[in-house]
This record gives sequence, structure tokens and C-alpha cells, in this order.
Amino acid sequence: MAKTNKDWKSRADKLKARLKKLEKRLEAALRPPSPAPTGSKPAAMSPLAPAAFPALPVIAGVEFAAIAAGVRYVGRSDVMLVRLAPGTAVAGAFTRSSTRAACIHDCQAKLRAKAPEGAGAAIIVNSGNANAFTGAAGQEAVDAVTGAVASALGMPASRVFSSSTGVIGEPLPYARITAKVPELAATLSPGGIELAARAIMTTDTFAKGASAQIEGEGGTIHIAGFAKGSGMIAPDMATMLVYIFTDAKIAPAKLQKIISGQLDTSFNAITVDSDTSTSDALIVAATGQSSAAEIANLRSSTGRAFAAALGGVMLDLAKQVVRDGEGATKFVEVRVTGAESNGDAHRVAMSVANSPLVKTAIAGEDANWGRVVAAIGKSGATADRDRLRISFGDMVLAENGWRVPSYDEEKASAYMEGQELVISIDLGLGTASKTVYTCDLTHRYIDINADYRS
Amino acid sequence: MAKTNKDWKSRADKLKARLKKLEKRLEAALRPPSPAPTGSKPAAMSPLAPAAFPALPVIAGVEFAAIAAGVRYVGRSDVMLVRLAPGTAVAGAFTRSSTRAACIHDCQAKLRAKAPEGAGAAIIVNSGNANAFTGAAGQEAVDAVTGAVASALGMPASRVFSSSTGVIGEPLPYARITAKVPELAATLSPGGIELAARAIMTTDTFAKGASAQIEGEGGTIHIAGFAKGSGMIAPDMATMLVYIFTDAKIAPAKLQKIISGQLDTSFNAITVDSDTSTSDALIVAATGQSSAAEIANLRSSTGRAFAAALGGVMLDLAKQVVRDGEGATKFVEVRVTGAESNGDAHRVAMSVANSPLVKTAIAGEDANWGRVVAAIGKSGATADRDRLRISFGDMVLAENGWRVPSYDEEKASAYMEGQELVISIDLGLGTASKTVYTCDLTHRYIDINADYRS
Repeated sequence: MAKTNKDWKSRADKLKARLKKLEKRLEAALRPPSPAPTGSKPAAMSPLAPAAFPALPVIAGVEFAAIAAGVRYVGRSDVMLVRLAPGTAVAGAFTRSSTRAACIHDCQAKLRAKAPEGAGAAIIVNSGNANAFTGAAGQEAVDAVTGAVASALGMPASRVFSSSTGVIGEPLPYARITAKVPELAATLSPGGIELAARAIMTTDTFAKGASAQIEGEGGTIHIAGFAKGSGMIAPDMATMLVYIFTDAKIAPAKLQKIISGQLDTSFNAITVDSDTSTSDALIVAATGQSSAAEIANLRSSTGRAFAAALGGVMLDLAKQVVRDGEGATKFVEVRVTGAESNGDAHRVAMSVANSPLVKTAIAGEDANWGRVVAAIGKSGATADRDRLRISFGDMVLAENGWRVPSYDEEKASAYMEGQELVISIDLGLGTASKTVYTCDLTHRYIDINADYRS
Repeated sequence: MAKTNKDWKSRADKLKARLKKLEKRLEAALRPPSPAPTGSKPAAMSPLAPAAFPALPVIAGVEFAAIAAGVRYVGRSDVMLVRLAPGTAVAGAFTRSSTRAACIHDCQAKLRAKAPEGAGAAIIVNSGNANAFTGAAGQEAVDAVTGAVASALGMPASRVFSSSTGVIGEPLPYARITAKVPELAATLSPGGIELAARAIMTTDTFAKGASAQIEGEGGTIHIAGFAKGSGMIAPDMATMLVYIFTDAKIAPAKLQKIISGQLDTSFNAITVDSDTSTSDALIVAATGQSSAAEIANLRSSTGRAFAAALGGVMLDLAKQVVRDGEGATKFVEVRVTGAESNGDAHRVAMSVANSPLVKTAIAGEDANWGRVVAAIGKSGATADRDRLRISFGDMVLAENGWRVPSYDEEKASAYMEGQELVISIDLGLGTASKTVYTCDLTHRYIDINADYRS
């Protein structure tokens, strides 16, 4: 039978679609060589990156500086300094790794100690070297760097917090950092937040920032923060490096309580590759310089609004870390509902989000929900095959112990071509739920991690 | 201007030509050619494969047949049948996945029931479809297949064990199997073990066999078995598909006790990708046809020798599964000693063996022991940075909380170029130990799992 014009058009459209898909795969296959370890030539930006670094509000009482110290990278800034005005409350959360870095132990000790009345504080961070598993030399390096900052800024070293990120097990050439501290101190400025965010990047392909503001009693409260992180992302009680600043007036203990309460739904709800870093750190500083009244009661409407806003900034930064997951081409939300317990919901969500087989199927745009079934099965959580319901987006794919009668492979495959995917799993057993965020597992992850020591 | 029919045809032709060209380029760009999903063209053999399938002894009382039933693959055998003589003791171990396949539930129920006095038994296995998460239709398929075997061989269906391996969630076209059962039954032969081993392969690149023999009281006892497995390998109390046969005389309960005791050091000590299958099954059958006396006491010298020999065959097959790990180019032994508890030793070993960052570093021949440190740190086991000792082969790389003064990057890198690597971790805290076996994580794993539904 002769083809009509319409037949031909539809055929051409189909061919065009296939061509597009093939082109994409070819592009992936002909991937440009991996990022130079020197960082002199930045890697191609993640396809999931936001359009630009957001405009962040200036937080009264916070100043930033960044500099190229040549710790490991050349031709880019790799150290940043933050000065926090007198009276700033500082709180934090850190990796629970048993091999955590010297700077993590140091931050934890300093946060446990009571700060002198009205003390200021500072944060100094380098990229390129994690100063982790560096024995006694690790603490020496921390003491030298924080001591240099203390002298330059005229504050006790007990109020100078430090982080290091990069390769593990190599001695930190800290003299390169201390030599630059005077220049850093001399160039501090309230508007330098983006430069600071860039200085702490390692395999990150974009700088990550987020902000929020709420109306307090008598004035506006501002929050602004930034993060780095791309690989070795499966945070445990904290994550990567994250620094958040606010002008809120709030006691350190209350600030700590808020961030501890927001961790489970933000940084502890993401995973790139199931590997937890030795150096994860989240530090939140509240300068108290807003004209709004002190947040003395966390149950007040301002207290609750502040916690929600801070949690929102934390979640925003956490999602950006996933969007910059090494090699990521898809952003995936795994929503588990109907679990018997919170622990079960968490186990199922993480089991699916960390499954290499699920993650490679997503990379291949294969609606392989069978691998989701296997990941649920291995999670150790209570699950009943006949009560499970698995959906991709709004499409229910499987329920009652089998794929749905209306299962449409073509529609499912078309869904997988999207860049933002939602995998929903209802266990049908209870009321506990958990949502986690992850990305796919691609050739580029192997390139980044097999070809260079990062 | 409106397009004419001819315009469209020319456009489609052009698109088709571009598509063809692109397809060719893509094929070239995708490094080593990927395995044909139909199985008609076998994938390149793993570089870690043994030289050949071993010569296995004939086990008296065991016959094998294999056939191409077209369950999913074309142009290759995909169903195998084993007949076990009257009086055979059968024992097994199975996945603990909560989404395990219908055939697993069926095997477990049949093994719990007491076998009729002097009953024979049979095992039928298909590749290409796992019959997992297929609802009530799953058990129907199992009943049809085991029923057909029972009729053909004249034994109760309660003594016919079945396994299915392949894609999850698609209905098993069991009529294709039952149609071939008479032919399978007619071609059973004691020498057919290698053909049977080949029929159950999926993404495997080589068939896996192993054997052992010991002198019993009054005669020789033979053991021969085979396995399949390549991806979705992180067994939990059993593994993949494994069938082991022996002519030993031994009661089913004693046989079960032996295999349960050998699991932790064999199949539960391997991981390819941390993903546990819905279909893992190990079945061991003892025909009792050796002239050696019955093994009535497991503590006797014969009892202990038999357990050691059977354990040796299990470990040999387990290691072969790792050697055929999807995309594997390195075989890696992770030895943990000095742990406070067995649980801690296991946690550390599996944390290192499953770490994508450790596995990609190995693929890249990068002596990145810092990632081993991070994997130990995240494991949840008790560890003390200053007591850890990490060695690659005979080279101690790190101890006393830092890399050793004699650390030689060049020597460490040279070691990584080997195909067989040993990573030793002494926690320096207690006496518990655990050794696990794994492989590296390469581009080919992504090729295999992103590009095809397996």
C-alpha cells in the first residue's frame, strides 16, 4: 500500500526521535577527556546545573575572602576565609566516619567548648587536600592554619573553624595557606560569598548557593549559604562542606537543635555513590545582626518559620550537590511511603537510590522497574510483594504482585528520557515515609574516578 | 511551502542514512562490543576467566540434559534438566530477598517437607526470565514446569526443584519450556554437566565448574558442581544459581548443616555490585551411590574432610562468579583482620569491597588507599585511625595513623597493574577476621547494564 504524506511525516518524526537519542548516546560515548587534575581547565558543567549562581543577600556581620594558594590546584582560588562578627552563634554537624579528618575532630572539640561572651569567629577552608589520615601531622596543620587566622583577625584560635577537602592521606602543605592568611584577612568583604563558594570546589562542576528570608519580630531575617560536593556523597549526619550564614539572633544550642532536626530530610536524604567522606562538615553561623528580635522560643511562629527557612536552604543545597553528582545526567527523587517504620522507609529508599543496577538503568533510559523490585527486596525492610506499588512519575507500573495490566513499555520508556525522574514506592504496610534524592551512574563517573586521583 | 510526498520521502531517506552512519559511529565509540542481548553472539570472555571449563568427574546417579527452548534468547540452549537417582538427599540455601521469585518460595517449601522414602528428584532451570515479581502467574508457571518434569520422569512434583534467572517482572512463557520437557527427559546423560552449565548462563562470559574428591571409608566420594552469576551479585545466605552434586551417602539434614556452615566463607563472601538478586539459589544433591560408607557423623575425619571438600568447591565457584563479574578486569581479595567482632570484620570488608570509589580506583590502577580509609570509616565498625594498617599485596602503605615513611608511590602503582590484587586491612583491635572477594568497576559494567535490559 502506498504511503500517504502523513505516513511519511510520522515516519520522519520517529526517525528524528531515534536520531536524537542516538546522537545523545554518541555524545556520551565520545565524551571529552576527563577533567585535568590541576583544575586549570574546569570540567564540562553538569547538565543538571542551575542556570547561574543565585543572587545571595548580604548577611550583616559576615565577610568573605578567597585566594589562590596553590595547595594542589594551579590557576584557581583554593582557600577561602570567613570572618563572623562578635556575638555570632556557631553550630555544626559532621561526618560520623571513624576515619574522619583532623579538622573535623578540631571543629567538634571547639563547638563542644563554651564560646567566650561576645566572641567573634572565623572559618577557613582549603580545597585540593583533605588533611585526612595524616596522623599527628594532621592536627599540627590544623593548629598552624587556625593559629595564623587567629593572629591575623585578633581572636582566640578556639573560635577559628577549619575544613579541608580533596585527596586523602597526603600531608597538607599548610605553609602555603598560612602564607596567604594576611592577604586573605586584608581582602575580606561582605559581598564575597560567590568567590568563597568557588574556592572550595573540587570535582564540582558548578558553585552551589541558596538563600531564604523570613519576617521576624521587628525585622527581616536573612539566610544565605553555599556547599561543595560531587562524589563520595552519602552523608551520615552531615555532608560535604556546607556553610550557611544568617543574621538571626539565636543561642548556639537552639541553632544546633534546629539544624539537627533538619538533617534527616536534607543532607541525610541524598546519595550520589554510597561513599561517605572523611571530611563532611556543615557549619551554620548566626550573627544576630538582624533588627528582628531574638528567636528565644523554637515553638513560636518565628521559631518555626526560621527552622523551615533554614531547612529549605539546607535541602536546596543538598539537591544541588546531587545535581552535580559525578557524571550525573538525571536527577532522581525516590519516594517511599507506606513503610512499617521510619527505619524501613529509609532502608528501602537508600537501597533503591544506591543500587548500581537501578542507577545504570536510569542512565540508559531503561524503565527497568524489575531492578527496583530487587533493590527493595535486598533492603532488609519488611516488604510484601503483593502490597507493593511502584510508579515512575504518575504512571503506576506494578501493583498486586505484578506489573499492571495497562503497562505500556513505550510510555514508560518515554518517561525515562526526562531529566528529572520520580520513582515512587508504596509498601502498603504502614504510614512511615522517606524521600531521598540521587542521580544516575554513567561512564563519566568511572572516567572521573578511575582516571585521576581526586 | 507545503511539503510534497516526495519531499517527505527524501527527508526520511536522508534521516535514515544519517541514522545508519550515527549507529556505526556509536558502535565504534562504545569500546569493546557489548554482549548481544539475544545471547546469539557471546560477549568477549572476561580477562579473569580460567583457561577452560574444568574436566568434572561423573557423579553416579546424576544425569543432565540441555536444550534451546527460546524462552528469551535465540540460537543457544536456555533450559537444563537434572535427574537425581532414587535415594538422593537434597539440601539448599536461598536468597533472603523479600521480593524473591516464585521458584524460590517453591523450592523452600519442598525442602521443608519430608521427602518420601527412597524418592528421586529433579532440577529444572531456565535462563532469560527470572519469573520474579510475576504475581500469581509466577507460581502457576512453576507448577506447570515442575508438573511437566514430574510426569516425564515419573516422580512426584514435590521432588522437582526449579530455578529461573533473567529479566524480572515479565511473565515466564512457560509453555515453551513444558513443550521441551519430553525431549529433555529423552536426552539425559551422565556426561552432560558442561552443557547444563552453559544453558543457565545470562550475562556470564564463561561457564563455571568445580570439583573435588575425598577418600571415604570404603571408597572415593566425588563432588562436582557449576554456577552462573555475573551481575546483581551480593548474595545474602545463598547466591546466584549453583548446583553441586556428590555421590556421598549422607542424610539431608546433615548435608544442609554442612552447606549452611560453608556459606559465610564462600558465597556470602563475594560481591560484584552490592545488588542482591531475587533468585539466588544453591542446591546440593547427594546421591549416595559412592561405595564409601555413609557420613553419619560430621565430626568424624570423613565428615570433616567432606565438609572441607564441599566448602572448597563452593568457594571455587564463588570466586569464579567474581571473576566473571560484569565488566571485571581485576580480581580483588579484601582481607580484614584484627576486628573487635565478626560483624565488624564483615562490615569493613564489604564496605571496602562495595565502595564505588575503591572499585573505580582499582579499575584505573590507582593505588588510592585513601579511599580504602574512607570506606573503613563509613562502615559503622569500630576502628581507630592510629591502629589501622593497610597493605596492598605485601606492601604496608599506611599505619600509625599515616602513610608509612617508606611509602613508594611508584611501587604501589606498579602493584595495581596486576590482575589479582590483595588489599589487607588490620584494624589492630581484636581477633576477628573476614576475607571477601570482589572485582573492579569499569566502563563495561555501565555498558552492560545501561544499554540492555538483562
